[in-house]
Amino acid sequence: MALFGRRKPAPVAPEVVEEVPSLPPAPPLNEAGLRSVADHIDYLLGLVEPLRPFGMSLVEAWDQVMCEDINSMINVPPNSTAKVEGYAVRASDLRDDDGAMVESLRLVDAEERLAPGEAARVLPGAVLPKGATAVLPSTFVEASEGGLRLLDVVEEGAYLRAAGEHLAVGARLLSEGERLNDRAIGMLASAGIDKVLVRPRPRVVVVSSGHELVEPGDKVRHGETTDSNSFMIAAAARAAGATVFRVALHSSDPQQLKTAIADQLIRADLLVSTTGGHREDYEAVANAMRELGMVDSAEVAMSPGRTQTFGLIGEDQVPMVMLPGNPVSAYVTFQTFVWPLIRRLMGASEKRRAVRAIASSTLRSNKGQLHLLRGELFSESSIRTIDRVTDPHALAELSRSNALIILDEDTDLVRAGEQVMCWPLEED
Amino acid sequence: MALFGRRKPAPVAPEVVEEVPSLPPAPPLNEAGLRSVADHIDYLLGLVEPLRPFGMSLVEAWDQVMCEDINSMINVPPNSTAKVEGYAVRASDLRDDDGAMVESLRLVDAEERLAPGEAARVLPGAVLPKGATAVLPSTFVEASEGGLRLLDVVEEGAYLRAAGEHLAVGARLLSEGERLNDRAIGMLASAGIDKVLVRPRPRVVVVSSGHELVEPGDKVRHGETTDSNSFMIAAAARAAGATVFRVALHSSDPQQLKTAIADQLIRADLLVSTTGGHREDYEAVANAMRELGMVDSAEVAMSPGRTQTFGLIGEDQVPMVMLPGNPVSAYVTFQTFVWPLIRRLMGASEKRRAVRAIASSTLRSNKGQLHLLRGELFSESSIRTIDRVTDPHALAELSRSNALIILDEDTDLVRAGEQVMCWPLEED
Repeated sequence: MALFGRRKPAPVAPEVVEEVPSLPPAPPLNEAGLRSVADHIDYLLGLVEPLRPFGMSLVEAWDQVMCEDINSMINVPPNSTAKVEGYAVRASDLRDDDGAMVESLRLVDAEERLAPGEAARVLPGAVLPKGATAVLPSTFVEASEGGLRLLDVVEEGAYLRAAGEHLAVGARLLSEGERLNDRAIGMLASAGIDKVLVRPRPRVVVVSSGHELVEPGDKVRHGETTDSNSFMIAAAARAAGATVFRVALHSSDPQQLKTAIADQLIRADLLVSTTGGHREDYEAVANAMRELGMVDSAEVAMSPGRTQTFGLIGEDQVPMVMLPGNPVSAYVTFQTFVWPLIRRLMGASEKRRAVRAIASSTLRSNKGQLHLLRGELFSESSIRTIDRVTDPHALAELSRSNALIILDEDTDLVRAGEQVMCWPLEED
Repeated sequence: MALFGRRKPAPVAPEVVEEVPSLPPAPPLNEAGLRSVADHIDYLLGLVEPLRPFGMSLVEAWDQVMCEDINSMINVPPNSTAKVEGYAVRASDLRDDDGAMVESLRLVDAEERLAPGEAARVLPGAVLPKGATAVLPSTFVEASEGGLRLLDVVEEGAYLRAAGEHLAVGARLLSEGERLNDRAIGMLASAGIDKVLVRPRPRVVVVSSGHELVEPGDKVRHGETTDSNSFMIAAAARAAGATVFRVALHSSDPQQLKTAIADQLIRADLLVSTTGGHREDYEAVANAMRELGMVDSAEVAMSPGRTQTFGLIGEDQVPMVMLPGNPVSAYVTFQTFVWPLIRRLMGASEKRRAVRAIASSTLRSNKGQLHLLRGELFSESSIRTIDRVTDPHALAELSRSNALIILDEDTDLVRAGEQVMCWPLEED
């Protein structure tokens, strides 16, 4: 009976393996268990794509990053012209196959194009007919009936100002990744370019959270602090070239945080979180990020700014950086990791500009970590010098600084009078 | 008879003197009949007033110029706190009128305000009650019934972290004329400032005229040139901080010019005229300016940019600068005279930043005139150097430059290796 028959195993429904998206493998740690700053930057940049380019009229495109190589559409000067009084000729007509000087050329009226064996009279500055490759000065010929008897020859290019001598059709004017300054815009206009392919300004949303933060101007009760980080970071993002929105939550409630972050995904190309100084506020943001997306947490070989949290949030995997609560750490983290992300979104190829300066006092660091000190750069003299700035009030320290002093992983001491690398902060 | 009588003279109507507005007296010329660059700048700045300030929210005010001095609204830290375990006291209570140590203090529970003779127990970090001016460490007293017996005294301020120690109410944070960078914005927010008085971005209208100019992208016929100056100058004005409109006329017809200029007066805080290279186009603009307003024409001791024309145009006396037709002259004139006018409208107190650099080749000038050469500044090393840039194509020369080399009126020679002043052009 079938009842006792060997039952065919019920067909096993293929296991539905839910694809859990995850970040690519993180870079390896060093002996101290830390990720290097360079590795962290490269890792983040590898997770973010430049924004889609679009065409923009030249007059609007100032300070934008080029998304294409641009070549000249025109010659400057536009036409070849005679430098001397004489005759426009084809230089190759002046000698026969054996290289001997020909006897004569046919004199024609100025025409659009010079045929073989023809010469056309020109005055200095006159546009040469097409086909002409040289000007034969008047003194090199004698007039004969209907033609010219040659006394001497010239080589190609002689006695003329060539079309495109200063700028030739096809010459590279600007390359992808370069920014359009005012002179470059003049150059492009002169070359006949009226539209360029650029990337839009990234939209950065700064989300400020922390139950103890109040808006500037509001009454500060005991245990509360005025929110300053989100204002400073919003301005820093604008200085980096972004369009910025600031959202102030004044809460670390998990549900409120998640909703606030999720609400911003639609308009954000990059999210940046700022908090106050409390550890639990920082944790609350990290948890919200983990619930909404894929998160990388790392201890980076850097001071300040050791703890770094990055995520790709929501369905569209919008990048998000969480900044530390201390204002100096938040600012240094912004300049080190968020600034390159904004430039990456803009498609800029340039690296952050570092300059050398003479340290005016002895500076100390620990080997194995990148130390970013606050400094005041003096640039008026041809020799640049930098003073270290310290102030018990973190925001006063930043406010008095115009540069970050870079003491890299291999440096533990820079003596007064020695050179040190710096990042200027001022966009002038 | 009356007929032969002496006639009384008819009463003379008082002459109606029409007030013809005119510019103030121009500065004196030097022996060579030229106006100095410094005099010309001062003269123009004296004719232009800063725009009216308005209140702006802090987050919007990045990069704007302050129109007020700003003092801190808060103390950082906000409250005085104990550094050690002990008793909050009024230091003046600890000695009697003769300066001898008092025997005891009344111990009270922590209250809002400490009355004379009272002491309140505090732990490290605790906020002190109002009136307390020092902390008496536990070891300085012995408990007695309902009070404390003193073993030793302290002076005012001892063992406490004072309110406002890092930043005090009323401390100057930022002064009128300074620009708001990101760190300053953080500082202001932390000090409780949410709104600042700034001046709006000046609206600069660039009017391009010249019958031989065509728009980039349009076909260039013989004798025509693509308009590049107006694009370059519009971008330079944006880089200087202005909101810019570009109006292209492609004509030097007097009536069209007058109408175009008059039409812009309503939205312009400053008009800038650009033309092509033809003398008659320049003259046409100068004539239109004279018909619409008061005009100053000067030969300035400067190269390039010797001929300078400035006017106050229309009923509202809108300032207008006419730039020379040559691109290099136009750009140098912009940087020398228009840039300070834009900053003046913004209310900025800063002067154009000049830096020293080592000349990499010998540079020559004529004494008695300011010579502005195009240069490429190398800033990465701690010693700044500058190369002179020359190119037969004016716009290529500008495009390859990132600084102007200043050879002043007293200089005729700068040898390679000597220092020279420069204006960096890049806003980085």
